[in-house]
Amino acid sequence: MEEIGGPSASLSNFRILYLITQMVGGAIIILVGSWIGVHLGGLAWTRYPSIQFNWHPLLMVIGMVFLYGNSILIYRGFRFARKKPLKIAHATIHALAFLLTVIALIAAFDSHNLARPRPIPNLYTLHSWVGLIAVILFGFQYLFGFVSYLYPQMKEPIKEMYMPIHIFFGLTGFVFAIVACLLGLLEKAIFSIPDYAQLSPPGVLVNTIGLLIIVFGGLVIYLATESSYKRQALPDDVILLTGGTSE
Amino acid sequence: MEEIGGPSASLSNFRILYLITQMVGGAIIILVGSWIGVHLGGLAWTRYPSIQFNWHPLLMVIGMVFLYGNSILIYRGFRFARKKPLKIAHATIHALAFLLTVIALIAAFDSHNLARPRPIPNLYTLHSWVGLIAVILFGFQYLFGFVSYLYPQMKEPIKEMYMPIHIFFGLTGFVFAIVACLLGLLEKAIFSIPDYAQLSPPGVLVNTIGLLIIVFGGLVIYLATESSYKRQALPDDVILLTGGTSE
Repeated sequence: MEEIGGPSASLSNFRILYLITQMVGGAIIILVGSWIGVHLGGLAWTRYPSIQFNWHPLLMVIGMVFLYGNSILIYRGFRFARKKPLKIAHATIHALAFLLTVIALIAAFDSHNLARPRPIPNLYTLHSWVGLIAVILFGFQYLFGFVSYLYPQMKEPIKEMYMPIHIFFGLTGFVFAIVACLLGLLEKAIFSIPDYAQLSPPGVLVNTIGLLIIVFGGLVIYLATESSYKRQALPDDVILLTGGTSE
Repeated sequence: MEEIGGPSASLSNFRILYLITQMVGGAIIILVGSWIGVHLGGLAWTRYPSIQFNWHPLLMVIGMVFLYGNSILIYRGFRFARKKPLKIAHATIHALAFLLTVIALIAAFDSHNLARPRPIPNLYTLHSWVGLIAVILFGFQYLFGFVSYLYPQMKEPIKEMYMPIHIFFGLTGFVFAIVACLLGLLEKAIFSIPDYAQLSPPGVLVNTIGLLIIVFGGLVIYLATESSYKRQALPDDVILLTGGTSE
């Protein structure tokens, strides 16, 4: 019983991979949480700067990895939902990711600037350079995306023309975020695990988190770019485009 | 004067980006060479294990980054050459990349195993795990590619069926190689630059090499996947496919 626009073999593959992506994403957050809780002393704010740092990896994997990836995938993951709520969800999830990123950055800078006996310099490692590019790309992307797609007077041809650019820089920012996370994990492992060379439990944990982040990133990019998984426009989308209401 | 199959606007874009890719690739090798020559004590073999290590980053950026990327791009870069010499060049460049990778691995393992006063453990960092996956992917890819496309009795439908898989895992291995290089650069910077936190010249140099490697990797992936840059089959290719000679 195949309906028009109903599930196809390709859509069934998409669903399985989408589910795996969510499970890998969930596992990453849980494992980063465990790493922080078991090996890095938990969480704190400015009173204990070295512990305050731990918000940085936690909020970055939630914001710049899990939420960013899920916001990218929302159009394909919820392909039978109307376009307008999807756009609002896309913008809201990205806004939440940005908020977590700002808190994560404050945690990192505080942990350096408030360190005793003397402050630790900022933005000197390759991790910080790549991460900074990721955040700047993300910020501009949000601004241009908001103006183009949520500002009511924007003309259709401009929206259509900007779309491939929006997608390209969205995915580019996501790849920078993934690479920044991997570099950050390695750097924190070297700085914080005295027996990393003996492949102690936190070392294996950090390396495993790194591999899972690569898997998550690869799945998001694949699901977002494979042409057979593209969301097809719904009749409601057309009503929206022609200026009617779809309620 | 536009010829059939002659230059189009898209081909002209390809050429400019291909040229930039080569320049960035060349710059990476020169900068890694400078880093080794100026800041890491040059090159040696087993007599000075800590210096022997320096072959590792040099041969890896030449083999797993520059040659690997160029071998991927050869079909599109030399689009008016016949298919058979391109295939042989693709296999030869990859073979050379593999040879350099093996020497680079020996240099890394030797520098650990021969270290005094005691050996340094192997394969414990995230860099080594990601790099190992890159090399394993590369090895299997070479084996399956060789059997599928250079073994004379292989049937056409099998070659055609395997092609998307060959491309997918080729690009995946390349992405792992790029990520492994970035992780390796960061790790070597932390281990070898005492004033990395003060953004000393070698620190800026390593971070810059890292950014250039991301640019090179991004350009290779883009040039290899953008559909408008795809090499079109030449009449000679068809002659080859139907078993005739094209000499």
